[in-house]
Amino acid sequence: MSGGPSPRVRLSEEKLARAALTYLAEPGDPALGALLTICSPAEVLAAIKADMLPGAGPGCGDTPASRAALDRALSRWRARLPDLPDDERIAGICRDGVGLTCPGDAGWPDALDQLGRARPYALWVRGRTDLRFACSRSVSMVGSRAATSYGGHVAGEIAADLGERGWAVVSGGAYGIDAAAHRGALAAEAVTIAVLACGVDYPYPAGHADLFAAIAAQGLVVSEWPPGRHPARTRFLVRNRVIAALGCGTVIVEAGERSGALNTARHAANLGKPLMAVPGPVTSAQSAGCHRIIREWGASCVTRAADIIELLSPLSTPDALAPGGAPDVLAPARPSRPDPGAGRGPSRDDLDPDSARVLDALPTRGGAGTSTIAVEAGVDLDTVLRCLGRLAGYGFIERCDRGWRLCKP
Amino acid sequence: MSGGPSPRVRLSEEKLARAALTYLAEPGDPALGALLTICSPAEVLAAIKADMLPGAGPGCGDTPASRAALDRALSRWRARLPDLPDDERIAGICRDGVGLTCPGDAGWPDALDQLGRARPYALWVRGRTDLRFACSRSVSMVGSRAATSYGGHVAGEIAADLGERGWAVVSGGAYGIDAAAHRGALAAEAVTIAVLACGVDYPYPAGHADLFAAIAAQGLVVSEWPPGRHPARTRFLVRNRVIAALGCGTVIVEAGERSGALNTARHAANLGKPLMAVPGPVTSAQSAGCHRIIREWGASCVTRAADIIELLSPLSTPDALAPGGAPDVLAPARPSRPDPGAGRGPSRDDLDPDSARVLDALPTRGGAGTSTIAVEAGVDLDTVLRCLGRLAGYGFIERCDRGWRLCKP
Repeated sequence: MSGGPSPRVRLSEEKLARAALTYLAEPGDPALGALLTICSPAEVLAAIKADMLPGAGPGCGDTPASRAALDRALSRWRARLPDLPDDERIAGICRDGVGLTCPGDAGWPDALDQLGRARPYALWVRGRTDLRFACSRSVSMVGSRAATSYGGHVAGEIAADLGERGWAVVSGGAYGIDAAAHRGALAAEAVTIAVLACGVDYPYPAGHADLFAAIAAQGLVVSEWPPGRHPARTRFLVRNRVIAALGCGTVIVEAGERSGALNTARHAANLGKPLMAVPGPVTSAQSAGCHRIIREWGASCVTRAADIIELLSPLSTPDALAPGGAPDVLAPARPSRPDPGAGRGPSRDDLDPDSARVLDALPTRGGAGTSTIAVEAGVDLDTVLRCLGRLAGYGFIERCDRGWRLCKP
Repeated sequence: MSGGPSPRVRLSEEKLARAALTYLAEPGDPALGALLTICSPAEVLAAIKADMLPGAGPGCGDTPASRAALDRALSRWRARLPDLPDDERIAGICRDGVGLTCPGDAGWPDALDQLGRARPYALWVRGRTDLRFACSRSVSMVGSRAATSYGGHVAGEIAADLGERGWAVVSGGAYGIDAAAHRGALAAEAVTIAVLACGVDYPYPAGHADLFAAIAAQGLVVSEWPPGRHPARTRFLVRNRVIAALGCGTVIVEAGERSGALNTARHAANLGKPLMAVPGPVTSAQSAGCHRIIREWGASCVTRAADIIELLSPLSTPDALAPGGAPDVLAPARPSRPDPGAGRGPSRDDLDPDSARVLDALPTRGGAGTSTIAVEAGVDLDTVLRCLGRLAGYGFIERCDRGWRLCKP
């Protein structure tokens, strides 16, 4: 079909409804989040169009106050109905290099479900990398827009090093640390994910149009907002929870005392994800936020990719390095050095049976596609996807042109 | 008596014995530490001279192994007997601007008793500042000899700021961070204490002879080794426990991965004292040790004097600043700012009766000497010394030319 017209994209009723909801409601709208816990997206969309929300009758358990809030939300959503593209146009957008990933899709990262009612309705995606896989081994790295040359240098170096070790780098596409993190990952030919606070086709900041194109070619540009949507101040704050959720942990490289990066840091901590910060000179205002979250929020002090990987690797058992126990004040106490093997994943023997079967199904040389591996392993597609993600996360396998291949030991 | 001969110094039998032991044994000698838990210093000294240790008979509970260790120790100590100055000469040293502070003296800091059997036998002291008072509100600050200009600058600034706020700065008198810390305190006209690994009259490093003179004039130069004793490599490590013990907490400003400053840090941690480190650029090898003890030993990340004081102030109750609890992912979570009043000591109402009486005895304007205050308060000298130290530690009072005065609110 190459050279001919793009294939017709068929979206399910649920996906079309979720796409429509991204046009009508702001992401993270608590009223919509609450409705989606009791109704399907299609039911909610139909109710908005009908100006009649579910649970409207008496005895449905809702209070006058929540009822009033829902009514106000309904007005907000209905105000955008005139600009809602029809299903055909949404399908057309999805033909033009933009995709839609929804809860329940094979490519939907479980990590987003941790956001509960604030889970994105859907994610618009530019790029062909599998979001779920990328996020199985990912680090969110954000920081000040007004980065110093020190911060930019360190962010780029750490991101490149993470990329070389097979970790995806998630950031926000802004000037400063975000851009340095994306560029470091790109330089390492690694996957990087830009989470925007506007449509994935909307070049903001304008100077980053080329950067976003490069990210989409090698990784992903994603957004909760539909194509064409402008950024807005509050949208950056709402967006930050998605940056925090998509990484296995969050690293702050430079942040002033009031940096928006600290908002992302707070989200990571609230999600129970490892929060890390890179220190800098105490004479630099751009490192003040990093030092404060290390001191006051218990963020880990990390200085290089290896520190980050050690904190994030599954089943890592860092040595008990803290001093303690009985005073041994005269021994020339030398701090123990970290075990160079610490932070590695489990051995083959630690794998669950399905993952072990999938690992055995990979060819010893070259790569194989997902369905070939599923047939070889004798497992269904859902299982193979789950196991491949896990194996990649543990460092047993990596992506290649043909699909997946074993990592070199 | 000014202009005439110095008054005759009368040292008790115990002090003379302790002084002699500093000549005969290396500080921290475990055999001598053990003996001093069961015998008086004079008994031990007499036993060394008689070549007959206590507990020598059968049935005294000691094992052949410990007996053999004691015999070896006895040989070591007796080997130095020919060079032991007689009591008259020791008293003469104490006339020449050098003092001796022993366990049980009013000026002996309780903190040294935390060292248990490794407690110094005595401390030789150059300078007229009260060691016990100085240590009631003190910060140990050490770091790399090969400090960068960044490290030297930061150590000096923080030390000066601590000094201005009434905190004494304890360090090791070495080149680099130690010297910067001492000089910062001196510049703030504050008390600083150099803990040497050689005699207090021995200028090591030679380039610091003037610095030590300035420290002795405004603070204290102290040592476990007797006057005239040379430094040696192992002595620095043994000395480090005293630096850690004399501070209410220890701050590492710059330290390479194998810096001796980390040995001091380990001692502070083993003593249960707050351990702090100042971060720096991750690109600087001289900050690598600081970052590692923050990450792996749980050292607090401090960037300025106020951070240190907040951690060390008695009864400080820093706000619970760490994020936590239920995810609140949509609120533009702004990290709470530290309460400017946090880290302050107790109010007058929280004081014990003696301290309250001593505080009331201070004149509202100007200062008063210790004995005047004791008479005014109607308490004995021991009590007034204890209470003045406590009140200074809480920040109610401070030293002045005339003795003590109330701090400005």
